[in-house]
Parts: sequence; structure tokens; C-alpha cells
Amino acid sequence: MEFESYFPIWDKLNKQQQERIKNSLAFRQVKKGTIIHNGNMDCTGLLLIKSGQLRAYILSDEGREITIYRLFDMDVCLFSASCIMRSIQFEITIEAEKNTELWVIPSEIYKSIMEASAPVANYTNELMASRFSDVMWLIEQVMWKSLDKRVAAFLLEESAIEETNELKITHEIIANHLGSHREVITRMLRYFQNEGMVKLSRGTVLITDEEKLRELSK
Amino acid sequence: MEFESYFPIWDKLNKQQQERIKNSLAFRQVKKGTIIHNGNMDCTGLLLIKSGQLRAYILSDEGREITIYRLFDMDVCLFSASCIMRSIQFEITIEAEKNTELWVIPSEIYKSIMEASAPVANYTNELMASRFSDVMWLIEQVMWKSLDKRVAAFLLEESAIEETNELKITHEIIANHLGSHREVITRMLRYFQNEGMVKLSRGTVLITDEEKLRELSK
Repeated sequence: MEFESYFPIWDKLNKQQQERIKNSLAFRQVKKGTIIHNGNMDCTGLLLIKSGQLRAYILSDEGREITIYRLFDMDVCLFSASCIMRSIQFEITIEAEKNTELWVIPSEIYKSIMEASAPVANYTNELMASRFSDVMWLIEQVMWKSLDKRVAAFLLEESAIEETNELKITHEIIANHLGSHREVITRMLRYFQNEGMVKLSRGTVLITDEEKLRELSK
Repeated sequence: MEFESYFPIWDKLNKQQQERIKNSLAFRQVKKGTIIHNGNMDCTGLLLIKSGQLRAYILSDEGREITIYRLFDMDVCLFSASCIMRSIQFEITIEAEKNTELWVIPSEIYKSIMEASAPVANYTNELMASRFSDVMWLIEQVMWKSLDKRVAAFLLEESAIEETNELKITHEIIANHLGSHREVITRMLRYFQNEGMVKLSRGTVLITDEEKLRELSK
């Protein structure tokens, strides 16, 4: 499968627009852990994921992190091209959570097509609305949900993504996803272990009672 | 001044689009405290504020509130027309914080113009990006900033909006803006009073040391 079949609005572009994108496109293979974009870097461009997994997060002045959203196969990352819109005034960091293959559409090319094309502009709207919904969900989580529920929900999400109950993940990484501290997560996971929901070993969280964890996460 | 001079992209509409909007437009005067839109209601439409002040907030299951953003003269409220985009999957409540005069553009009219017009779609993009930036700012506040700084910043913001140091505001309303509890805000304000930054009386917070409050808010 090639770019044309991955890019959701390929058929809505005219021949000339298709040519411009094809001729400016870059294909990249990035290793797990690579920082693909951060707020201070140049405007990287739109990312279309062929395969892999990306994480978008924000950083505090003190270096704390919280995950804003994650992207998977066929997803498009808009905020790595934040310079295409004047009103985007925040900085996001994007990191490969797995080895990832992706296409980069240069920001200036996408911008000039979007300015002329209603379908591309409306597609961009839907992309942004979808990320907006992720962020609103996050605010609700952070504001109204206690950390035990958020940790439980995160473990279940990871288990669904990785298709296993044996999660290879450190307490620090969980803390960085949830905007918490490692020590707090460790304490929480030990409590989960006492309750029989997980079993902890070095670098691994084994989910032993998914049902109970799901009940807690509600 | 009439609608044409308030609507930022009037000149980018063609004659037929201008006619459609003019013929479907409603002008409303709403009293302070009116709920103009909530997530469960029908899709109200785009709101263009002639004069007044609106507040967009979310509600928890338990009835707690947190302000997402505020809108002033000439601002456009997009999420009261959330049905124009499939990917908007969150519920926002919009309330008049002051007596407000506004125009309502019906959602289906705006949607059909946006789908055909690149300038309107791109304008919508900028609107959403601007609200997105507000929400990202809010996440940073909630995640990384302690409540004392947030209360200080809120009092200064209110003082700037109202152009007075004598704020007619209850502790409950402050709590609803910040997603906190009345008791917590009361305790915080009493601490501010002890430090000489404010003077409290029934329904009023008087800012007595703006400099010190600003220093704290940083």
C-alpha cells in the first residue's frame, strides 16, 4: 500500500495538488524513543503514520510530562505542523513510542493547498476537532477523576494496545503519561497488588484481575 | 454598527452566501445568568457577540464546574454549533456572565457554507485553534500550577475585565471557574487577606495589594 491509499482525502485533491504533495513528500523510519517534533524545533510538517505509534505530550518547566493523545496506523498528526495556523499557541512534543514508519508532508505545501481547498480545510477541521475532544476528555479526567481510576484505565488501555496482560512498562513512564510522580505511581501500583489486581516485577506490570481493574476504572 | 461589520469574514463571502446568512440570522438579547447552550440541548448555532460576556464551562457528574474559556465583544462561539463537525465529542455549557447581545447563525446554514468555502473553513480552523490554545493553557494551569497562583491570576483577570479592584464575586463562583470547592477558595482568600493582598466582605473581594498578588501569580 502506498501513500495515496493512506491519505484520507487523496481523492478530494485535484491532479495538481496531488502532484505537489507527491513531489514534496518524505518517507521516514524512526526508532522507538525518537523525539520527532518539539515545540522549539522548526515546523516539522504533517505526519501520516504508515505503521507504529506516536505520543504527543506537554512538558512543564520542571520537566514533568503528561500525555495529550496517542496516534496509531493511518492517523495524521496536525500539531507537528502548528505553523500552518496563526492561532495555535502551544507547544507539543511528539515522540515515537514504537518503531514507526511515516510520511512527512511539508507544512508550507499543506498550508497553501488548505488555503485554496474547502475539502482540505474541512478535513483539517475534523482532525483538530478530534484532537480537541481528546484534550477535553483529558481535562475531565484530570479534574474529576481520582488517580487510582486513571491508573487503572491507563493499564487497561495499554493492555488493549499491546494485546497482552504483561505490560513492559516502568513506573516512571506511567507517571509521565498521567502527569504524576514516579513515587506516587509506585505506591498506587503496590496498593493494586495488595488488592490482587496486578503483580509487579522489575519493569513489568502483570494484570491479574482485569475485571476488578475495570470495575475500579469506572 | 451592524452584523456585517462584526462578522470577521463577511467580505470573503459571495453575495449568495451573504444573503443566506442575513436571511437566517437571529438577534438575541440575553440576561446575565442565562444558560444559552448546553451539551444536551439542540445544536444552538454559531454565536457572534455584539456586546456582553459569555463563559464556556464543563460540568462533572457531581455538578462541579470549570471554566474553559470566556468570550467578549466581537468574539465568535463555535462550540454552541458543535453539530457542524462530526469529531466534536464533548459537551460544553455556555452561560451569559453579563447581559449580552448576540447574533445566532443557524448551524446548518453555517455548515453548508463552510463545506463549500475554503475561506470560511479556514476561518473556522483558526477559531478552533484559538480555543484549543485556551484549553491547552488550562491543562498546564491545572497540571503544573498550584491553586494559590491560579486564584491570584483569576482575581487579576477579573479585575482587568471589570476595570476595578473591587470585585463583586462570591467564593462559590470563583470555585466554579477554577474547578475547585467553595471551602477551599474561602480558606485561600483568608490566607490572601492575612498576607494583605485582599480585603474580604460579603460578596466582595477587594484587591488591596495588586503588586504582591501579581508576584504570587507568576
